[in-house]
Amino acid sequence: MTTPALSRRDLDFLLYEWLDVESLTARPRFAEHSTDTFDAVLDLCADLAMKHFAPHNKKADANEPTMRPDGTVEMIPEVKEALDLFAQAGLIAGQFDESLGGMQLPTVVARAAMAWFQAANASTSSYPFLTVGNANLIVAHGTQEQIDTYVRPMLEGRYFGTMCLSEPQAGSSLADITTRAESQPDGSYRVTGTKMWISGGEHELSENIVHLVLAKIPGGPAGVKGLSLFVVPKVLPDGEGGLGERNDVTLVGLNHKMGNRGTTNTLLNFGDGTHTPGGHAGAVGHLVGEPHRGLSYMFHMMNEARIGVGFLAISLGYAGYLQSVAYARTRTQGRSLTDKDPSSPPVALIEHADVKRMLLAQKAYVEGALALGLYCSKLVDEQDTIGDPDLSARATLLLDVLTPIAKSWPSQWCLEANSLAIQVHGGYGYTRDYDVEQFYRDNRLNPIHEGTHGVQGLDLLGRKVVMQGGAGLALLAETVGDTVKRAREADGSAAGYADELAAVLQRIVATTVRLWSGGDPVVALANSSVYLEAMGHMVVAWIWLEQLLAAEGREGDFYEGKRAAARYFYRFELPRTGPQLDLLDSLDRTTVDTRADWF
Amino acid sequence: MTTPALSRRDLDFLLYEWLDVESLTARPRFAEHSTDTFDAVLDLCADLAMKHFAPHNKKADANEPTMRPDGTVEMIPEVKEALDLFAQAGLIAGQFDESLGGMQLPTVVARAAMAWFQAANASTSSYPFLTVGNANLIVAHGTQEQIDTYVRPMLEGRYFGTMCLSEPQAGSSLADITTRAESQPDGSYRVTGTKMWISGGEHELSENIVHLVLAKIPGGPAGVKGLSLFVVPKVLPDGEGGLGERNDVTLVGLNHKMGNRGTTNTLLNFGDGTHTPGGHAGAVGHLVGEPHRGLSYMFHMMNEARIGVGFLAISLGYAGYLQSVAYARTRTQGRSLTDKDPSSPPVALIEHADVKRMLLAQKAYVEGALALGLYCSKLVDEQDTIGDPDLSARATLLLDVLTPIAKSWPSQWCLEANSLAIQVHGGYGYTRDYDVEQFYRDNRLNPIHEGTHGVQGLDLLGRKVVMQGGAGLALLAETVGDTVKRAREADGSAAGYADELAAVLQRIVATTVRLWSGGDPVVALANSSVYLEAMGHMVVAWIWLEQLLAAEGREGDFYEGKRAAARYFYRFELPRTGPQLDLLDSLDRTTVDTRADWF
Repeated sequence: MTTPALSRRDLDFLLYEWLDVESLTARPRFAEHSTDTFDAVLDLCADLAMKHFAPHNKKADANEPTMRPDGTVEMIPEVKEALDLFAQAGLIAGQFDESLGGMQLPTVVARAAMAWFQAANASTSSYPFLTVGNANLIVAHGTQEQIDTYVRPMLEGRYFGTMCLSEPQAGSSLADITTRAESQPDGSYRVTGTKMWISGGEHELSENIVHLVLAKIPGGPAGVKGLSLFVVPKVLPDGEGGLGERNDVTLVGLNHKMGNRGTTNTLLNFGDGTHTPGGHAGAVGHLVGEPHRGLSYMFHMMNEARIGVGFLAISLGYAGYLQSVAYARTRTQGRSLTDKDPSSPPVALIEHADVKRMLLAQKAYVEGALALGLYCSKLVDEQDTIGDPDLSARATLLLDVLTPIAKSWPSQWCLEANSLAIQVHGGYGYTRDYDVEQFYRDNRLNPIHEGTHGVQGLDLLGRKVVMQGGAGLALLAETVGDTVKRAREADGSAAGYADELAAVLQRIVATTVRLWSGGDPVVALANSSVYLEAMGHMVVAWIWLEQLLAAEGREGDFYEGKRAAARYFYRFELPRTGPQLDLLDSLDRTTVDTRADWF
Repeated sequence: MTTPALSRRDLDFLLYEWLDVESLTARPRFAEHSTDTFDAVLDLCADLAMKHFAPHNKKADANEPTMRPDGTVEMIPEVKEALDLFAQAGLIAGQFDESLGGMQLPTVVARAAMAWFQAANASTSSYPFLTVGNANLIVAHGTQEQIDTYVRPMLEGRYFGTMCLSEPQAGSSLADITTRAESQPDGSYRVTGTKMWISGGEHELSENIVHLVLAKIPGGPAGVKGLSLFVVPKVLPDGEGGLGERNDVTLVGLNHKMGNRGTTNTLLNFGDGTHTPGGHAGAVGHLVGEPHRGLSYMFHMMNEARIGVGFLAISLGYAGYLQSVAYARTRTQGRSLTDKDPSSPPVALIEHADVKRMLLAQKAYVEGALALGLYCSKLVDEQDTIGDPDLSARATLLLDVLTPIAKSWPSQWCLEANSLAIQVHGGYGYTRDYDVEQFYRDNRLNPIHEGTHGVQGLDLLGRKVVMQGGAGLALLAETVGDTVKRAREADGSAAGYADELAAVLQRIVATTVRLWSGGDPVVALANSSVYLEAMGHMVVAWIWLEQLLAAEGREGDFYEGKRAAARYFYRFELPRTGPQLDLLDSLDRTTVDTRADWF
């Protein structure tokens, strides 16, 4: 991979020219920072990612981790070498408090920095990605002792973290979790059960692995209200900063996937006695926060992970886009439609209208999605550091509404971008000699994990737009409306787009009311995935209008490219919402009425 | 794979209840046939496919062919075992004349039979698929000697065939082919050049490989008008029915692909001297037909191959659909939206509206595409055997218009079906423990080979709908209009759908006129891929209306399923054409105006 995995120029535009990230440095938490320190982090990450993550991306795919007979995992050495450099650069601690050894980077900058690694090597980047989420959760809900025992070594890169939710019989349905945690006289718990799909669940990349495990304390409420959260380390700390006995957490097997092969994905047994023969039954775990509040804590990590999955999809889409642009510039094939002379030299692929269509589509998807992801990341910064409680609550509310979109939209459309990147390469793109087929395989995971596409649709339509009496949707409409207003006041194409966006926004609000007016959730939610997709396109159209305004009056190829991609999005993409909203408005019952026996 | 790869019930419906294939037996060519013989072939193929092709599908994917140091190819033995059984059953000769040892099956039955193998094992099925196409071409355009020398052993399964068009620098652009063929005093030619992407280009599955090679005779016209076609065997026949010397055709390398791994895909050198050291320069080839008419001959094979690629996409989509239905019936997860009791037992996935949406979409795509593929196949039978020259010409014309759609629409939407099949499986679908991830990888080839999606769009809008003064489009409109008329006379939902279809048809005709009214092919063809997609949805909506009429008045789950899928297609899919036609009507110049430097 010699083509950069992301565009630094685009990041600069989004962070500085659009989101005015510099203004964050006026806030106490970021007072030590400046555009210079942000730039330094971004430069460092681009350099590390391209020099130490990208080179083994293909190798890790071709040589996936294997389980040894003793239950340990073997993988190519480049993964640990890259992650050691990542940790040594202090990047795991990038967003954390200085008191924990962190850099106190704004989330928006940290996400942009992390995207370099996700784009260069999705699989290797997932280990610190999970570790940061795990550490964030313990900082938010754990005790000081838990922070000292687990978070500090994670931020140093000595321990890595996981999140253990799913079980073989309980994927999306966390109410059916059966892992148990029995209270012990010493205040600890013994955890027993089986967890499935645990990324980073076993490896030798770090001294220890910190599992955050959802389990039920016997006697608690049924369903998700009975879930509690436990920290269950692979190796028990010795209480003096070192490591003691092995905890009873056992690797049962590795999942062999279509893509994302470099990330170990595991089936884990907790408390099956493998590592404590004759000893106590159950793995030693410690309750995080209060009993029966595990799911709400886990959602702290889950919401962060959902935006992170969005970034993973964006990064893979972006890397594929840039590679297909580079290929289309150099590969010649055919002639212009008006050139009837077969002895004339062939032209570059990028000169053909249909190739430009495929590049414009990718550009509109990946740059639109990246802008959305960074916008949401900045909302995290607003929520955490804006100071004013009302403004903070507004940021939280808007982030709540946007999270299912920031997860699902890139997962759908940046995957489509990867498909187009293959198509631009023609037959070569279908071979493993090029990178784009791997990006496509890697990216296909993203509509599945951290809540499937269907789960995101139910979350958006069944919860997010109706919560607080519809305040979330109202705030989104107000925010989009503000952009529309500014665009109407601007010169050029933005005003025309503003009218189109305003019309779709108005329809979506009306459709939402209509869906819920019947009072029947079965009908209201029957087509929630369609609703999710329509809302996603409206939101990304809004984000493109924002970018267009930021590019207003600026000249040069970069800004012309932004205008061309915005034009593509408004001409080719936003109109897709018309038939979707027609379907929703009709309260269509096709899916509800169809019986299982008819298939 | 224990779930059937196709639905015999659906095939019976399409062949007998809809297309009235039985009526073909009244024609002289098929006089020996009856529904009994058709059924026997379909039963045999289903049995062979499931017992001998499906079991090694995953193994062939995990153990792709490798090149030995001596330039031969090693692959798992199950491929040859399966193909030997296929040949012994006489299936390669299924459609051919009895005088050549064939069964004289109608094309429509032969395609349905072949689809079992494509669905069970796309890679292994491609060897006879290419061989049949190759033999058909030589029968149509070769000499009796060429037929005796090459076709007979191919139909017996002793020789296999290839088509050699592309070169490393010339993929879609056949005008740039540089392979040369120099005339020899004995009437033969010496072929020199390099061919890329040659499926089945080297293997030890057969005694010999018959390459059909596009090459230029020096001194001929530039571009595609200078292409001639040559038969170039891997081993030279000895003239007495046996094999003589090795011809100078050399395997340079195998392409390593994302999917379709079981099919060797090769880079071949012709005439580099490897196999004739010190001998003549060039591989021995024999001209097929007349000089400089190679491309038109190759299109005989190409058009057949394009519909065949459509069937490959359909078959993979269908196999994935049936597997996801089976999975959704048995896998339980979550509860109905109205069940608030977390201790109630979970329901099967298939009970959830969003899962039904994903199954309905797959059903609508794969059954709609299969019906379209069989309809086109029956047009081949009409063309070849209807007797009346005018009716035969009509069949040819309609087939010409439908071919780019029969190739591209399944390649796009049955791939989407495979993505939905993964999604129904959740995380399990992303693992190699299930089949659907392989179907998705295998299917991603289909929008690329035998003319990319973009090439099909240019073919449809730039050639097919305008040829003969627009006669092809007029015939399609007349044919669809006839279905609309019958549907309006029918009871039930068909009449409502007929109005929707008629409206879209009318728009497409008007849009076609509008696109070409400006006289600028650059603008007219700027969005030909969008045109292709809109036309494809209109055509498949028509095919669904046809199926609905065939199901009219019939009761039972099977027919309810047809009605549900038709309803899905008209509610969720056909309306997508609205914004597409709006874009085309606007003569949008976004792709044309965007400059290469803006990316």
